[in-house]
Amino acid sequence: MTKRVREILSYYDSENAGVRTNLARMLNHGKLAGTGKFVILPVDQGFEHGPARSFAINPPAYDPRYHFQLAIDAGCNAYAAPLGFLEAGVTEFAGEIPLILKLNNHDVLNDEKDPAPSVTASVRDGLRLGCAAVGLTIYPGSTQEKSMYQEAREIGEEAKAHGLPMIIWSYPRGSGVSKQGETALDVVAYAAQIAAQLGANIIKVKPPTAFIEQAEAKKAYDAAKIPLEPLSERVKHVIQSAFDGRRIVIFSGGVKETDESLLNTVRGIQAGGGYGSIIGRNSFQRPKPEAIALLSKVMDIYRG
Amino acid sequence: MTKRVREILSYYDSENAGVRTNLARMLNHGKLAGTGKFVILPVDQGFEHGPARSFAINPPAYDPRYHFQLAIDAGCNAYAAPLGFLEAGVTEFAGEIPLILKLNNHDVLNDEKDPAPSVTASVRDGLRLGCAAVGLTIYPGSTQEKSMYQEAREIGEEAKAHGLPMIIWSYPRGSGVSKQGETALDVVAYAAQIAAQLGANIIKVKPPTAFIEQAEAKKAYDAAKIPLEPLSERVKHVIQSAFDGRRIVIFSGGVKETDESLLNTVRGIQAGGGYGSIIGRNSFQRPKPEAIALLSKVMDIYRG
Amino acid sequence: MTKRVREILSYYDSENAGVRTNLARMLNHGKLAGTGKFVILPVDQGFEHGPARSFAINPPAYDPRYHFQLAIDAGCNAYAAPLGFLEAGVTEFAGEIPLILKLNNHDVLNDEKDPAPSVTASVRDGLRLGCAAVGLTIYPGSTQEKSMYQEAREIGEEAKAHGLPMIIWSYPRGSGVSKQGETALDVVAYAAQIAAQLGANIIKVKPPTAFIEQAEAKKAYDAAKIPLEPLSERVKHVIQSAFDGRRIVIFSGGVKETDESLLNTVRGIQAGGGYGSIIGRNSFQRPKPEAIALLSKVMDIYRG
Amino acid sequence: MTKRVREILSYYDSENAGVRTNLARMLNHGKLAGTGKFVILPVDQGFEHGPARSFAINPPAYDPRYHFQLAIDAGCNAYAAPLGFLEAGVTEFAGEIPLILKLNNHDVLNDEKDPAPSVTASVRDGLRLGCAAVGLTIYPGSTQEKSMYQEAREIGEEAKAHGLPMIIWSYPRGSGVSKQGETALDVVAYAAQIAAQLGANIIKVKPPTAFIEQAEAKKAYDAAKIPLEPLSERVKHVIQSAFDGRRIVIFSGGVKETDESLLNTVRGIQAGGGYGSIIGRNSFQRPKPEAIALLSKVMDIYRG
Amino acid sequence: MTKRVREILSYYDSENAGVRTNLARMLNHGKLAGTGKFVILPVDQGFEHGPARSFAINPPAYDPRYHFQLAIDAGCNAYAAPLGFLEAGVTEFAGEIPLILKLNNHDVLNDEKDPAPSVTASVRDGLRLGCAAVGLTIYPGSTQEKSMYQEAREIGEEAKAHGLPMIIWSYPRGSGVSKQGETALDVVAYAAQIAAQLGANIIKVKPPTAFIEQAEAKKAYDAAKIPLEPLSERVKHVIQSAFDGRRIVIFSGGVKETDESLLNTVRGIQAGGGYGSIIGRNSFQRPKPEAIALLSKVMDIYRG
Repeated sequence: MTKRVREILSYYDSENAGVRTNLARMLNHGKLAGTGKFVILPVDQGFEHGPARSFAINPPAYDPRYHFQLAIDAGCNAYAAPLGFLEAGVTEFAGEIPLILKLNNHDVLNDEKDPAPSVTASVRDGLRLGCAAVGLTIYPGSTQEKSMYQEAREIGEEAKAHGLPMIIWSYPRGSGVSKQGETALDVVAYAAQIAAQLGANIIKVKPPTAFIEQAEAKKAYDAAKIPLEPLSERVKHVIQSAFDGRRIVIFSGGVKETDESLLNTVRGIQAGGGYGSIIGRNSFQRPKPEAIALLSKVMDIYRG
Repeated sequence: MTKRVREILSYYDSENAGVRTNLARMLNHGKLAGTGKFVILPVDQGFEHGPARSFAINPPAYDPRYHFQLAIDAGCNAYAAPLGFLEAGVTEFAGEIPLILKLNNHDVLNDEKDPAPSVTASVRDGLRLGCAAVGLTIYPGSTQEKSMYQEAREIGEEAKAHGLPMIIWSYPRGSGVSKQGETALDVVAYAAQIAAQLGANIIKVKPPTAFIEQAEAKKAYDAAKIPLEPLSERVKHVIQSAFDGRRIVIFSGGVKETDESLLNTVRGIQAGGGYGSIIGRNSFQRPKPEAIALLSKVMDIYRG
Repeated sequence: MTKRVREILSYYDSENAGVRTNLARMLNHGKLAGTGKFVILPVDQGFEHGPARSFAINPPAYDPRYHFQLAIDAGCNAYAAPLGFLEAGVTEFAGEIPLILKLNNHDVLNDEKDPAPSVTASVRDGLRLGCAAVGLTIYPGSTQEKSMYQEAREIGEEAKAHGLPMIIWSYPRGSGVSKQGETALDVVAYAAQIAAQLGANIIKVKPPTAFIEQAEAKKAYDAAKIPLEPLSERVKHVIQSAFDGRRIVIFSGGVKETDESLLNTVRGIQAGGGYGSIIGRNSFQRPKPEAIALLSKVMDIYRG
Repeated sequence: MTKRVREILSYYDSENAGVRTNLARMLNHGKLAGTGKFVILPVDQGFEHGPARSFAINPPAYDPRYHFQLAIDAGCNAYAAPLGFLEAGVTEFAGEIPLILKLNNHDVLNDEKDPAPSVTASVRDGLRLGCAAVGLTIYPGSTQEKSMYQEAREIGEEAKAHGLPMIIWSYPRGSGVSKQGETALDVVAYAAQIAAQLGANIIKVKPPTAFIEQAEAKKAYDAAKIPLEPLSERVKHVIQSAFDGRRIVIFSGGVKETDESLLNTVRGIQAGGGYGSIIGRNSFQRPKPEAIALLSKVMDIYRG
Repeated sequence: MTKRVREILSYYDSENAGVRTNLARMLNHGKLAGTGKFVILPVDQGFEHGPARSFAINPPAYDPRYHFQLAIDAGCNAYAAPLGFLEAGVTEFAGEIPLILKLNNHDVLNDEKDPAPSVTASVRDGLRLGCAAVGLTIYPGSTQEKSMYQEAREIGEEAKAHGLPMIIWSYPRGSGVSKQGETALDVVAYAAQIAAQLGANIIKVKPPTAFIEQAEAKKAYDAAKIPLEPLSERVKHVIQSAFDGRRIVIFSGGVKETDESLLNTVRGIQAGGGYGSIIGRNSFQRPKPEAIALLSKVMDIYRG
């Protein structure tokens, strides 16, 4: 157990030993074991965007077992997916990599302005499948916030009582935010704060842009002269916004992009004190050797 | 136990032995026993469309016992119906054919744009009636998705804990999809993926058309050059979309049509690697000898 | 479904369709399918007598999978065993043979005069493992009768509500009966009646001897001139005692004996209208080919 | 994941992925990681024998944290203790070594002839503390067998449903067995069989002596010419008695003895195909460096 | 918050903040606030010994309010009593002193050899009454151990989940111990260990005598040369036996005795590192001013 891992675990000293043990399992697994950094493979796009948009570009990825093997071969800290995908591979890969059950999901067949994901699995499923954590998405800014926050809280209470950490994907969306605002610095920082206040142990947000969405917030940013550039400064602000660095915040890789652009984002996250990345489409939407090579470069950056 | 049946059961290795035993009961029953293929008789149209639309054309079909006998005589793998229809015949036919309790239903007296079926029976009913599975419908694309997905998930968890497989009829419908889009290739493939992610053991979808509904999806289909013709290619794509063939996907017979058209559809399903058909109206809306003759031809195709 | 199977199922017309479906599964499985007769392989001796006494004579039988395969190869109607033995093979053999979970068990490390078995599995286990029935032992004559009868009743109520038949091994033992009396005709007939009154769907007793244990009973046997010889007359009396033949009563093979002696017993059971045999030690305590040959002869007798 | 670990996990293919994941955690931890062998440190003697008899010889062992550190430093697969001892150190050591909650316990202030341990913790405690398994003791041969077996069964069902393996300490004791008989070969083999039939995932027994306790068993041992010497043959027989090697059986170190005698026992266990040792008093009742040196030698033997 | 209080709270780092908050409330109340020492007033003798034996010597003590006022005036850390006594005064004194609900009790109208107290109040009562802890008695050595330990464990789990510490009065008694043995050093140390293993946050035992009860224990005491004199050495041994000082152990005042004898006992407890005293009969069985004077002297000793 490295000093850094011990330090991170100390931030969670009001959680029971079960939650901390599972945090430790993720912190001590894969190529970043012991560094306090995370690279997680998430594959919920089959549900969120549909199978062809997710897997047609790399057909072996239609097979649920592909992703377990990719996460293992790449040395990720954990693999996150919805119930069906986990069930379809877990027997073969039980015990080989920490698993995160993504227990709510949303699809774009019903692509409403104010989305609310469906709860598609239970904490008991997570225990039965041997998961190290459960994860769920909230959409701050949606008119359906209340149902999502309350589900998050209920699930979190049950999960933690059984020793499973709660990971929140906090994605601003809906009537309350503009399209541009969804990744605005003030909005992302706010989303991280909300997730932390809801009791999330790990928080996932999108890398923030230099835009400020809310007028009242802008005054504060201006007054305090919070720097908007470069990315590392924005990451630093988001990390600060999640309990002054005392909650693990990781950043999504976002849409498929050029390797160099993605690696630059990762460098910004690392320079700003971010805890790591959760990289889905940039991993599984390319041939496996290329994915492993890219993830290896990402991990090199986080290893510092 | 044939090699093919063993192979299919292996896809469900995270399910308990009870679920797999009941899958085996259906896979090993009727004229297609051992082939890994399914022809299921479903009769929920009395609830879904009303009795006259369903049975007036072949009045003996008003009697619930008619359908048990038809499924038995035709050598189907299973017979699926709502609570009332099953209760009305099960004492006489107990043990003669695997039964599927369709435990949610919808009617067209309230024919809303965004439908959500009612839960009209329980898992305990399924056990009490000696069923080999429970089935339910979801309507991806409906604004009521969330309640349906969550009911599916809760019912699935209870059913499987008691050894009963869950079958999902995944029928896109509602504000999120156009009428033509309900059978679009991208939408049907997406519906199959959603059902699989929800933990369905058997998935029923409609045969997909060559139409692509969603603009974002179209880009992916074009980029990956996914063929839209003939039907067998579309079926292949849907099967791939349900965990690369590792989930049983069967196709509805749809509206009553000419025998030749239906058999051509079946040939396409077979050529594309589909697991079989669920044929209701084309079975019970004609005299029994004709129905048996038609189903026999269908089974011949699946027997290969 | 043969006429005889239908007739037997009609005796259970107050049971729900689930219970009757599972009775039908056993009645229609194996070489005796459709005859209304049973040959069941039970292997609880590892628990009841210890492993060496049970398996040392035929060491492959230490492996739980051996017994599944033996029951399948011999064409038995069902295989019965405690939780551990079923769990250790069920994944491999799911769906190949009806299983009976023996959910209470007793050992001879604590070989008390008035035994009461421990409940070592649950009805939920039976459902989870895909069993066709649950079984349990009662010891009429033990001072602990009350706890056993009540457990039997509670388990039976739960099992049947979930569609699982209850099988009772009714073995008189304890302070209330002499050693010789344990197989006395009056005692065995009484034990069959008690099991039937407790709601057993299938009753297992030992082949009765020509001895009469209870003085009050002897008066009745003498007065009614109930014949004590040959075995077929005794079997007939036991069958009559279990609701005049309207409950399935099967007979144990007992200790390992010569083939001819065992086959003569089977002939007596068949001649007396017994429903079949449950043959453990005489099956698995010899090399598999010999066991299959013997069971084949037994089944030939029952096939009539 | 080594081939041997995969093979062992395959024996548990009817358990859910959670149970197998936790078995894998123990199999892949410490100096024996990947070998399929176990050395577990158990410290329940404070409860079972009293504090002075347990710790006075090595006073640092009064401190609960001592044992966590000893198990970690020695490279054990897991550390097992009652609730109080685990709670008193788990916050400091969360995530550093797999923990086993020993959730029933017995003391010798009430040293009855027919003991029955008290349930002193719950499955929920095990989850809350981040344990990889729960453990409990049964005393086959005690007149209180029934309550113990039933508690074991209920706890096992709950534990496994939540992904925690069940470990049974199967220690014959009570009116049914003589003092010498407690470690007799037939009795130990029987105790292993009972634990396996109760659904134990890991079974702990004492190294068997060359004595045979039960007269009926002796006949079987004589007839099958089961060798009583050397220890490796006895271990082989016990392993065979636990589902032909398909259940993990580990052996206690017993009372404090000379190093050479203990290492000889370990050599016998290894030669007989045993899965390892659970060594308490011989570990913590000596200075830590000596304990680590001894455990290191034990592990060298098991590493082969 | 003094350094010593912080240190003591750190021993309970696996308890939730609610339990630690209530421990802190007691540690920081009264004349010993901040010292890490306790003087608690317990008044359960009305139930345990009858009213006249308890209160006739000082009739104002019949009034439940008397004891609240005494504990407040004397500056005790807490006041402990059964449900009835607390309910009869709590409204008047709410918030003035930490309360401990003694939620099991025993009387001497049924003075059995192997006692087991009755659960006479609930955790919910404790919350409703604003208590800082719940307390209960176990009798190690009684043949009824199992029921007591299990009640303690269940109550402890519920109490702590609701933020209430559990205090165990661990009083060896029953068939397993001689009369003299009830306060023997080995037995008292063992009783402290058992309470700690059961998860007690505060443990109450009797001051141990220089007698050793158990033959096996005697060997260990002799071998380790554990000193039996003076009292401070014995106290030190008991404290060590309760997780090496990492559990709060307090000592009863016992029967009414001379002030000097009682103060000498307190001096021994203090010298041996004990955490304090729980003084009932020596407090309320004398006029209040005298009681306060005596308790003041006791506190002076503990203040060091």
